[in-house]
Amino acid sequence: MSVLVVGSAALDSVKTPYGEVKDALGGSAFYFAAAASLFAPVKIVAVVGDDFPLEQLDFLKARGVDLAGLEIAKGKTFRWAGIYHPDMNQRDTLLTELNVFQAFSPKLPTEYRKTPYVFLANIHPELQIEVLDQMERPRLVLLDTMNLWISTALGSLKKVMARADVVILNDQEARQLTGEANVIKAAKAVTKLGPKIVIVKKGEHGAFLVGPQNFFTLPAYPLESLYDPTGAGDSFAGGLVGHIAAQASHDDAVLRRAMAYATVVASFAVEKFSVDRLRQIGKKDVEERFKRFSEMTQV
Amino acid sequence: MSVLVVGSAALDSVKTPYGEVKDALGGSAFYFAAAASLFAPVKIVAVVGDDFPLEQLDFLKARGVDLAGLEIAKGKTFRWAGIYHPDMNQRDTLLTELNVFQAFSPKLPTEYRKTPYVFLANIHPELQIEVLDQMERPRLVLLDTMNLWISTALGSLKKVMARADVVILNDQEARQLTGEANVIKAAKAVTKLGPKIVIVKKGEHGAFLVGPQNFFTLPAYPLESLYDPTGAGDSFAGGLVGHIAAQASHDDAVLRRAMAYATVVASFAVEKFSVDRLRQIGKKDVEERFKRFSEMTQV
Repeated sequence: MSVLVVGSAALDSVKTPYGEVKDALGGSAFYFAAAASLFAPVKIVAVVGDDFPLEQLDFLKARGVDLAGLEIAKGKTFRWAGIYHPDMNQRDTLLTELNVFQAFSPKLPTEYRKTPYVFLANIHPELQIEVLDQMERPRLVLLDTMNLWISTALGSLKKVMARADVVILNDQEARQLTGEANVIKAAKAVTKLGPKIVIVKKGEHGAFLVGPQNFFTLPAYPLESLYDPTGAGDSFAGGLVGHIAAQASHDDAVLRRAMAYATVVASFAVEKFSVDRLRQIGKKDVEERFKRFSEMTQV
Repeated sequence: MSVLVVGSAALDSVKTPYGEVKDALGGSAFYFAAAASLFAPVKIVAVVGDDFPLEQLDFLKARGVDLAGLEIAKGKTFRWAGIYHPDMNQRDTLLTELNVFQAFSPKLPTEYRKTPYVFLANIHPELQIEVLDQMERPRLVLLDTMNLWISTALGSLKKVMARADVVILNDQEARQLTGEANVIKAAKAVTKLGPKIVIVKKGEHGAFLVGPQNFFTLPAYPLESLYDPTGAGDSFAGGLVGHIAAQASHDDAVLRRAMAYATVVASFAVEKFSVDRLRQIGKKDVEERFKRFSEMTQV
């Protein structure tokens, strides 16, 4: 079954201890699509400016990604620039130019409205609500967010969370949102806000899932070389939702495997800058690493 | 089969956000023994002062722990005091009074010398060497250490590491010892120093094992309440070595389960102060949590 993603589309300039890129493909919608399209058909809703190098999306088209919902607006594409610290766990934002993203109002093509799986990537919660208002009874709504919206749009965020089935956030966000210092308690507190399932990402320390009858925890895939952590979270979500959509199920067994696929896809994403590694790999690479990862974590 | 542990014996005064204890049973030998004795017969070599409340060891005796190697020296027992920060990931040492531990020279009773499994807990590497010199062809030598010996006794540490089969250390120590920032690379670099197997503990983020044909990674057991992290590493080692000794094997399947038992036993250890939780539980509690943990990590 297919997946709809609504998120940001950006040109990123990133510097890490291993090199740098300028105006490379970025944004949550593209990272997610590059990951999820390894598993299932993907539809994108996002906005770029008229300066956007559309040929960069050819690999997504080749994977059957539907770009009918990609709006090309007059003006410049959203630009983000950042530099990572030597330990790669922290970064400084050097530039955030919203440009055409500032006035983004997601408009779903009619044929998108019945997409069964929806991933609301990290955009303003009011826009996430606008998306849900245009959907016709999706099977599963998954939602990501960030510290900014917890600080500045908590009311809207809680509204949209109450309409989501699965909320994906990182450990710091879970703590900030709930005031619980213990991350397990924090995740359980998030389920009280509406979503049946909460997934907490802990970066290099793995991820865990809390549900009504589920508790599932995984380490990260062990990497000796990490080139650029940008987009790891959206790639994780892409692997997760992609597997769920491909199986057309989110029962416990599927969710466990989806968490492992998410981990594996995120591990590829950080091996090169931008979506370069996700562009390179195919399903076979994913399956090979999935098998290795399953073996590594098998008690 | 039985396990010999040589390590410190202390009276700890610990303060955490959840309470405090004064002069409670502590030290690597006792934490290790409290954990390992849930699995296999344990022999202790350590030193206490003549002020030591020996009745505190009754629960170890009841589990068949052999205390023939516990020296009672004239003077005061080693005392340590520390206070944990609110996030429990950092602590300040308030007091280190070595007392009788200062002149500790491990003497193995004759009947200890053929013990098949030896755990050299964190003591000066020269003392660890003295222990090995008294052993008769142990089946497996496992060694723990700390940042202090990496800084101040690196030559001796490398000597004893070359005689160990398994080295257990934490992520920071692995980095410090090898100069590798990436913890996987660091662990592999430690195997170059002699031990076939290296186990890296990452506290609340789990642990992994690197061997000639092994790579195994596990998250920590998810705990909603953490009362006192003191002794978690020695309890981890106790669960690990205890299971290996009970199975009289360290093949890949046993090592995987040993890592999971280690994780589970460490999770009990931090649920109360001192060895109070390890004193309370039995093998049935361990097996129940092991089963739950295996389910939680099953892809």
